[in-house]
Amino acid sequence: MENSKIGVWLIGAKGGVASTAIVGLIALQKRLIAECGLVSALPQFRDIGLVPWEQLAVAGHEIRRSPLADEAQKLAADNRIISAELISQCRPELDAIDQRIRPGMILNAGPAIAALADVDIPPSETPRQAIERLRKDMADFVQSARLAHLVVVNVASTEPGVAAKSLPPTWAETDRLLDDPQNCPLPASSLYAIAALGAGYSHINFTPSLGAGCPAIDELARHSNASHYGCDGKTGETLLKSVLAPMFAHRNLGVLSWVGHNIFGNMDAKVLSDPANKQSKVASKGHILGPILGYQPNSLVSIEYLSDLGDWKTAWDHIHFSGFLGVPMTLQCIWQGCDSILAAPLVLDMVRFAELAHRRGHVGQMTFLASFFKSPYGVSEHRFDRQFQMLEQWAEKKGPFP
Amino acid sequence: MENSKIGVWLIGAKGGVASTAIVGLIALQKRLIAECGLVSALPQFRDIGLVPWEQLAVAGHEIRRSPLADEAQKLAADNRIISAELISQCRPELDAIDQRIRPGMILNAGPAIAALADVDIPPSETPRQAIERLRKDMADFVQSARLAHLVVVNVASTEPGVAAKSLPPTWAETDRLLDDPQNCPLPASSLYAIAALGAGYSHINFTPSLGAGCPAIDELARHSNASHYGCDGKTGETLLKSVLAPMFAHRNLGVLSWVGHNIFGNMDAKVLSDPANKQSKVASKGHILGPILGYQPNSLVSIEYLSDLGDWKTAWDHIHFSGFLGVPMTLQCIWQGCDSILAAPLVLDMVRFAELAHRRGHVGQMTFLASFFKSPYGVSEHRFDRQFQMLEQWAEKKGPFP
Amino acid sequence: MENSKIGVWLIGAKGGVASTAIVGLIALQKRLIAECGLVSALPQFRDIGLVPWEQLAVAGHEIRRSPLADEAQKLAADNRIISAELISQCRPELDAIDQRIRPGMILNAGPAIAALADVDIPPSETPRQAIERLRKDMADFVQSARLAHLVVVNVASTEPGVAAKSLPPTWAETDRLLDDPQNCPLPASSLYAIAALGAGYSHINFTPSLGAGCPAIDELARHSNASHYGCDGKTGETLLKSVLAPMFAHRNLGVLSWVGHNIFGNMDAKVLSDPANKQSKVASKGHILGPILGYQPNSLVSIEYLSDLGDWKTAWDHIHFSGFLGVPMTLQCIWQGCDSILAAPLVLDMVRFAELAHRRGHVGQMTFLASFFKSPYGVSEHRFDRQFQMLEQWAEKKGPFP
Amino acid sequence: MENSKIGVWLIGAKGGVASTAIVGLIALQKRLIAECGLVSALPQFRDIGLVPWEQLAVAGHEIRRSPLADEAQKLAADNRIISAELISQCRPELDAIDQRIRPGMILNAGPAIAALADVDIPPSETPRQAIERLRKDMADFVQSARLAHLVVVNVASTEPGVAAKSLPPTWAETDRLLDDPQNCPLPASSLYAIAALGAGYSHINFTPSLGAGCPAIDELARHSNASHYGCDGKTGETLLKSVLAPMFAHRNLGVLSWVGHNIFGNMDAKVLSDPANKQSKVASKGHILGPILGYQPNSLVSIEYLSDLGDWKTAWDHIHFSGFLGVPMTLQCIWQGCDSILAAPLVLDMVRFAELAHRRGHVGQMTFLASFFKSPYGVSEHRFDRQFQMLEQWAEKKGPFP
Repeated sequence: MENSKIGVWLIGAKGGVASTAIVGLIALQKRLIAECGLVSALPQFRDIGLVPWEQLAVAGHEIRRSPLADEAQKLAADNRIISAELISQCRPELDAIDQRIRPGMILNAGPAIAALADVDIPPSETPRQAIERLRKDMADFVQSARLAHLVVVNVASTEPGVAAKSLPPTWAETDRLLDDPQNCPLPASSLYAIAALGAGYSHINFTPSLGAGCPAIDELARHSNASHYGCDGKTGETLLKSVLAPMFAHRNLGVLSWVGHNIFGNMDAKVLSDPANKQSKVASKGHILGPILGYQPNSLVSIEYLSDLGDWKTAWDHIHFSGFLGVPMTLQCIWQGCDSILAAPLVLDMVRFAELAHRRGHVGQMTFLASFFKSPYGVSEHRFDRQFQMLEQWAEKKGPFP
Repeated sequence: MENSKIGVWLIGAKGGVASTAIVGLIALQKRLIAECGLVSALPQFRDIGLVPWEQLAVAGHEIRRSPLADEAQKLAADNRIISAELISQCRPELDAIDQRIRPGMILNAGPAIAALADVDIPPSETPRQAIERLRKDMADFVQSARLAHLVVVNVASTEPGVAAKSLPPTWAETDRLLDDPQNCPLPASSLYAIAALGAGYSHINFTPSLGAGCPAIDELARHSNASHYGCDGKTGETLLKSVLAPMFAHRNLGVLSWVGHNIFGNMDAKVLSDPANKQSKVASKGHILGPILGYQPNSLVSIEYLSDLGDWKTAWDHIHFSGFLGVPMTLQCIWQGCDSILAAPLVLDMVRFAELAHRRGHVGQMTFLASFFKSPYGVSEHRFDRQFQMLEQWAEKKGPFP
Repeated sequence: MENSKIGVWLIGAKGGVASTAIVGLIALQKRLIAECGLVSALPQFRDIGLVPWEQLAVAGHEIRRSPLADEAQKLAADNRIISAELISQCRPELDAIDQRIRPGMILNAGPAIAALADVDIPPSETPRQAIERLRKDMADFVQSARLAHLVVVNVASTEPGVAAKSLPPTWAETDRLLDDPQNCPLPASSLYAIAALGAGYSHINFTPSLGAGCPAIDELARHSNASHYGCDGKTGETLLKSVLAPMFAHRNLGVLSWVGHNIFGNMDAKVLSDPANKQSKVASKGHILGPILGYQPNSLVSIEYLSDLGDWKTAWDHIHFSGFLGVPMTLQCIWQGCDSILAAPLVLDMVRFAELAHRRGHVGQMTFLASFFKSPYGVSEHRFDRQFQMLEQWAEKKGPFP
Repeated sequence: MENSKIGVWLIGAKGGVASTAIVGLIALQKRLIAECGLVSALPQFRDIGLVPWEQLAVAGHEIRRSPLADEAQKLAADNRIISAELISQCRPELDAIDQRIRPGMILNAGPAIAALADVDIPPSETPRQAIERLRKDMADFVQSARLAHLVVVNVASTEPGVAAKSLPPTWAETDRLLDDPQNCPLPASSLYAIAALGAGYSHINFTPSLGAGCPAIDELARHSNASHYGCDGKTGETLLKSVLAPMFAHRNLGVLSWVGHNIFGNMDAKVLSDPANKQSKVASKGHILGPILGYQPNSLVSIEYLSDLGDWKTAWDHIHFSGFLGVPMTLQCIWQGCDSILAAPLVLDMVRFAELAHRRGHVGQMTFLASFFKSPYGVSEHRFDRQFQMLEQWAEKKGPFP
């Protein structure tokens, strides 16, 4: 790999996760921070040829108008996470990236998301026109920044769920729907994915939205020699679940019930206050216990928005389990994490892994990234450690690549 | 394997773990309870030829006089764990086992343990005489019950630690010390181990005491074609540590400090009130973070005896960790488990695995049992899931055994 | 006070709270247990002339057919709280009380409660006929057991809420509705209260249901020289709230948000799974913060039914508060209590206090009982300690009473 | 009260509590912050004539040399509590106060504290000479700033405990010891108190150190018409204990055990790592349960220093209690507070209350301040709410004072 740049295209480029990822990347490039929280910086991935931080260049789509640096500043002020000093050190780079952020799209993204939009979005685009516009934005960035490859990552707010039945199974059928704004069931996240994958760019769906998570778009990806993966970044409570549930399974302790109560106050939480959007999220958080345990315990996941908590999420998990002689026992966990801080480094990690996969000639779903997701496409293994071994094993296959 | 019986010889046969294991085994044999909490009952171990519950017969050594059924009853009354009804259903079998329990030994077991002893122990035995007496007890059981094999499990209270330097490295040198009560540094747990291993029986050290955990006794085991393993059953807080620490490691989250505070009130806790005995325990609990994380975080483990808690142990763990951009976050866990209930099934599991290993011709340390122990002999892998895979992989190697 | 008996009439006489109160009372009378958990047994109430346990006699109404002793037994078996041995020691008395339990009523009690009913309830009673039937049951008990007074306590399941606007403000208007089953908005709990108060008996509403909690029925009580109080026994999370919130108030710490998440699995919880019934409960739990703090913080209370938890309720409270210089801090509480065990003694306490109030000539609302309730009638003081002082001060007014 | 200034003399003037109190006071004077966390700002104390923030002037003693603003900055940087921006806004005032801070003293303060000292302290002072020097510093401030009164507050690190038996009971005897450095048992905290009280200044002992907490120095105070109070500010876990224990008492729930485990990492914690200093602290935290409950439950308090936690203290409390029918239940609390932020406003509050008491003619112990202290002098009431009522009642006695 020569020294040509690799592009990172963020959908939702001014949101909490994106802002944090961008500030973090600039700080890494300027060597202002350590590589803490970055999976790709672990010793086992040090020598496999991942793209260095210095070679990454960022741009993206966004539906909100306010300056990127202001968004970052607000994150700093409201949540006491990023220091105001760090943001001023990164200011010139933030402003330069801001210039490269283009207006996004809100087709079928639901009213909670639509209510946030204040950029100029062409009013009567068909899905196909929107895709072409978005793809042109990406291609312009590739050309102007002379990028060797582009990795598109969706870190926008969660859309309402889409009924799988309403989607045609093949790309040919799907393609035909793109000219019919009234009957095209695809949400914004999928149109972004089509824009990226149809052009051969890699695509990562960090959200629970549909994105490329249907057979037709996967078919498009494979046809375009593109690779993709998702969905829903595993950053907090579900990560913990995928770590703890195997312990109960391997010790044959019977989980009677598993209750998770999540409280937080960032924009993601606010969007989740809309029950339609919340449903996609809760479904994605609740479903991993059955496959890990081999049976379905009583299980409840609730999410509540509390503005005062800002980006800090507290998750209380109460696990009631049965031991030898049927004796009931309890494990409780309290996770106090900062959502953006947990998610942002994984975005950067996956950009590096996806870019290496591209060089290694990978096409289609990148199942070796399963450990990063709550609902990994095409993978029924939900035990975190076994998923992580999939990544380690993929990494070891280093060899002569084009 | 024919229908001949397999013997389970418990050292500390009337303690909480032993009483629970015995009641549980009888209940399993009478099909009064499900196999909940038993690792060896998991699907992946179902068809590898483990000895069925019905073929296990129990006896053991003990230094306290009170009837076994009374000890079990007390456990039921004080801790609301075993139902009084279950104990009366198992009464005849409990009384029969009681008849087979022989007086144990307290050489170098420390004053806290010595204070508990009220059986008749020959007053001026040399270590060698004690070993011969213990071994004869075991052999008598093998003969009278026509056992195909005997597995000896140490579930006695924790002894004060023994300085490794004071121990001779070879069996030949060690053997010479056995006639010299004044200068023999070996504690009771090791003399029991010598009695068992020298006779070719399998030996499991469920405690943090020395047992067979030194080169000289391992040499004796190998010389006698016997197999053994330990030490210190991993049942609660340390189990959790070995499950959670890999998550921090694999996500490159920097553990700043890990504090564990344990409170409980059973006899084990009382013995641990003696600072000498406590030291062995705390050392065994604290040391796994470094190997898993690759660095040593601030780490504190404390254990407190509170009589009112009985056999119920509550462990509070507070993990302070650093994420991306150096943001500090926190995970807290509260484990409320019943010590005997967590430990007892593992004793039964390891008897079955050790017996199968014996049939498979295994000699020396049974490293595939690492997942059961806080301080697994000869294994530097402390990640629970990876340890568990060692057991799964060993199990799969089923084939024609003698 | 002579040695004549005092009657305790329980509405919902076979429910968890009632069964526990009855077993406990018998055990107190037979001196099988200590007075732990009983407020009326505190030193400050020892010499004020409360009726001794021996003089209490129990009967009641119930809509379920199964024997009282079986209900108690089930409580013992499912929740490991009452020992099976204690229940057999109390068996003869339990059976005698069972003979005195009469069929209750389900008018306007909602479908979740109606679904539980399996006793023979006269099918086409008007409210007035029901009241007369219930009152006759009570009077028969007073006569046959030669009682000096009767205290009626509602410990039935929570009914759906009743809109205050639908209720006439005076007794005269209310009285007229009793002949019109179609248009009478009064729920079962209120008809029971009318039956009791109209006959001059004391009435305690331990539930969030309406009961005597409206001006018209209070008017009836005062007119009949009867005294009453409610509502919704303060036993767990709300008790804690009324203890902790004053600390924040008195230290001028600004509560930003207070989240309470309750999980439990008894019949009360099951009935609360019906959203209509749940609403009355949540409203009663959430409203005390404003009056104590002087402002309304973000506040959420959720209740979830998990069958495996039985009568054990775990409440997690997360309090986010702001200190000096606006620094946000956190207090979390985890309450693991057994609902029936917490509620039952308060029922017995209030019977004693209400009976003494009757002897002291009290009429109308017994506001000195405010500390026992989540929503104390006519009292705006919600700080637990100040409420408790109201009880202490009332108690001290001992003197010559009729 | 005219507009003359009131002096605040802080012993340990650059420590965490003092720095926070000073920054906070300046911010209050400049109206940069709200009065959150300040007890004296509650409505019930608004009109009793407390000195306004604008009239307070600060100076003090300290044994460390580094600039006050640097100490504040470090607090901001290490603990994310005070914003760097706020500190720069207060910089000129901080520097002015710094000029008024004089070298303190370390006689009998123990080696852990002595190790921190780097200012020039006269090397061979007798206790009397030290007192005279300290008193002159205070008097110079009174004169130069034309103060109407001075309130001296000890917020220095905790000294090792002093055996009560070693202290003479009268001032006359004590006075005689002051010329004998070898045999004078009085620690630094007491010499500071003598310096203040002998000059008629008010004295508040916010620490567990001896200070004025012995009969002889109280005698001196009364003789000098001075008032004083202490000891050991009640800011976190013990505050919670004094709030929660009354609930158990008033509900007659039997506390079986109460375990408190505290972890934090500020300089106070570091000094407490010295077992001698720790002992004074633990003793002060553990003793309130007995008086509140009327019996002594199993009780353990532990404190651990973990540098990574900085000024943030997490306290885990586990309360095991017995309810009706002897059923054991549990309450757990997790308190995550910032020590300096919790303590600093109480220092400012007590300055105001003590100054008003001085104007009201109060002499001797100010028992109405009991709610602020873990070990309130001369008060056996440890229930927080009852203590707070003592303050409310004292406040109401407003009237014409000299």
